[in-house]
Amino acid sequence: MTQGPRLTPLADRLPASVPFVGPEAQERARGRPFTARLGANESVFGPSPRAIAAMERAARETWMYADPESHDLRAALAAHHGIGPEHIMIGEGIDGLLGYLVRLTVGPGDTVVTSAGAYPTFNYHVAGYGGTLVTVPYAGDHEDPEALIAKAAEVGAKLVYLANPDNPMGTWHEAGKVAAMIAAVPDGTLLVLDEAYIEFAPAGTAPPLAPEDPRVIRMRTFSKAYGMAGARVGYAIGAAPMIEAFNKVRNHFGMARISQAGALAALADQDYLDEVRAKVSVARGRIVDIAAANGLSALPSAANFVAVDCGADGAFARRVLTELAARDIFVRMPFVAPQDRAIRISAGTPTDLDRLKRALPEALAAARAFPG
Amino acid sequence: MTQGPRLTPLADRLPASVPFVGPEAQERARGRPFTARLGANESVFGPSPRAIAAMERAARETWMYADPESHDLRAALAAHHGIGPEHIMIGEGIDGLLGYLVRLTVGPGDTVVTSAGAYPTFNYHVAGYGGTLVTVPYAGDHEDPEALIAKAAEVGAKLVYLANPDNPMGTWHEAGKVAAMIAAVPDGTLLVLDEAYIEFAPAGTAPPLAPEDPRVIRMRTFSKAYGMAGARVGYAIGAAPMIEAFNKVRNHFGMARISQAGALAALADQDYLDEVRAKVSVARGRIVDIAAANGLSALPSAANFVAVDCGADGAFARRVLTELAARDIFVRMPFVAPQDRAIRISAGTPTDLDRLKRALPEALAAARAFPG
Repeated sequence: MTQGPRLTPLADRLPASVPFVGPEAQERARGRPFTARLGANESVFGPSPRAIAAMERAARETWMYADPESHDLRAALAAHHGIGPEHIMIGEGIDGLLGYLVRLTVGPGDTVVTSAGAYPTFNYHVAGYGGTLVTVPYAGDHEDPEALIAKAAEVGAKLVYLANPDNPMGTWHEAGKVAAMIAAVPDGTLLVLDEAYIEFAPAGTAPPLAPEDPRVIRMRTFSKAYGMAGARVGYAIGAAPMIEAFNKVRNHFGMARISQAGALAALADQDYLDEVRAKVSVARGRIVDIAAANGLSALPSAANFVAVDCGADGAFARRVLTELAARDIFVRMPFVAPQDRAIRISAGTPTDLDRLKRALPEALAAARAFPG
Repeated sequence: MTQGPRLTPLADRLPASVPFVGPEAQERARGRPFTARLGANESVFGPSPRAIAAMERAARETWMYADPESHDLRAALAAHHGIGPEHIMIGEGIDGLLGYLVRLTVGPGDTVVTSAGAYPTFNYHVAGYGGTLVTVPYAGDHEDPEALIAKAAEVGAKLVYLANPDNPMGTWHEAGKVAAMIAAVPDGTLLVLDEAYIEFAPAGTAPPLAPEDPRVIRMRTFSKAYGMAGARVGYAIGAAPMIEAFNKVRNHFGMARISQAGALAALADQDYLDEVRAKVSVARGRIVDIAAANGLSALPSAANFVAVDCGADGAFARRVLTELAARDIFVRMPFVAPQDRAIRISAGTPTDLDRLKRALPEALAAARAFPG
């Protein structure tokens, strides 16, 4: 028997890493399910009933490949945003689009700038294409636009990444600050503005769309406010030449047909989106209250989750997270100090948050009793 | 305003090519729908009713990300095939898996061998990662295993591709011939054995699974016999180290949750698969009869489509295809001579084939009347 395939030198040295372990894997390891799924910033309120109905109808059409141009969804998004469809690329979630974008722009020897502790799947793609990641720290639990731009200029970055609102902290910058960042993007650098959570943010958080601007590409998704994480529908808004470049590398027939149908119906139901926003706002307030009742402070959030400062270091926050998991509550936490003093709790249903309210005092007590 | 992003040198020189134009794009250009969708080798008979029901049920769960390990589906496939789950990787269709595989193994300067006129999406990925494609011709409308292996050895290929049954011709090799090909794979080369259509082939077409063999990776899909092209569920069977390597680069959260649920239910309904096989067999026979009634010969097929030899050159076959489209029949054709003397017609419903039967004589007459 022969030796089998030779991986490329780059692939050979990549770890078989996983940006996130899914809750299902944890449930299999635990031998029992979580009773509150508050770790992945999914929308527990689900998709619009109209989207569910559209997906149910589309189930029997799944023998057909999806339209590789996602024409109808792209047209609807263009109308929704008041821009031309040539500025929109639909893809398999923001994760998929980030992968294509990094592939198009980053190779060995290229540098990319992000915040230490920002979205790890972006970092995974950068490493996966051989890029060098350079980080700047958060400033007061906010990503730091000036520092990001300064570092991008210093290292000649191909990409610089900002999430607004930020994940995992939930903090945000006002539109004017982001617009100033866009204006300062160095020549040859592209700002990746990840707006996965933008629908939850206060008015005035997103700068106006200027899709012809080649300095920025903006990422949006149906995974969060639209409640369709499992459908894998994201979209990029950018200058037409950048958008067109995705056609060089993307998996043209990569979209699920049911997902396209669901996203189209979800977009058309903005009233439902408003309901979700209201429910998320209530849930955020309850998480703040639950934290306060336990002597913890919650960070202000413009997303569908709240980072709760556990009041000590990362090791302590990890114990709290572990103790919550032992009580069947799934949450996640930031990876990098000092942000890792917090745990990140997704906006849950009232029942989910009742469970959190019961479990948190016990989890904190158990974490504090841990032999230091 | 600055210049915007700099693409990598490789991305910069890639064309914004599309392996296939979708029928929806053609319908938009025509201004009316096709009445028989027989061009993409989809299964017009649809998925199992149990799969449809499972997808309908899963629609309201689409707020959750799918299990990134596709644990349940992988376990079910492992049991179905009598192999360990460590030999199976689930991905976003064979197209997605081919992309990951090429990324793992092929970079600039690497060579890949395939047949001239074989699956273009594989070639798209090879070009997309900077590989050099070397082709050998078909032999009597069959892919030529000996020539593929000889060329792979000659050029030191990283990958050599064979589809069995073949697409676009529908021809196939018996298991013994494929096993001999596997045994002859040169050291350092990996055979990509694309078995997308294997469920339609006669017993004795697929060599026994020997998943520990590092010389071959086999690609299977729910897009064809299982009738779920729009769901994007494929899987690779291979040696555990090769399968594990996908975790270095894949989009871990890339699967749609509804699609996983549908595939799991489809796999469990093997009786329905038998029904589909029987219907496809009948449809193939009818396509042969319709061809014969028009004085054309059909190639023997072990897939869910039939290549019909239009009896002249590629230009003539293309005119037939165009004339069929003018009569609302969507079909495709091979890209490379002399295989491009044929058009490729997917197994249709009785109604679809009634329409083909009416349209084909007119289309042939119109094509023959074309001013040469």
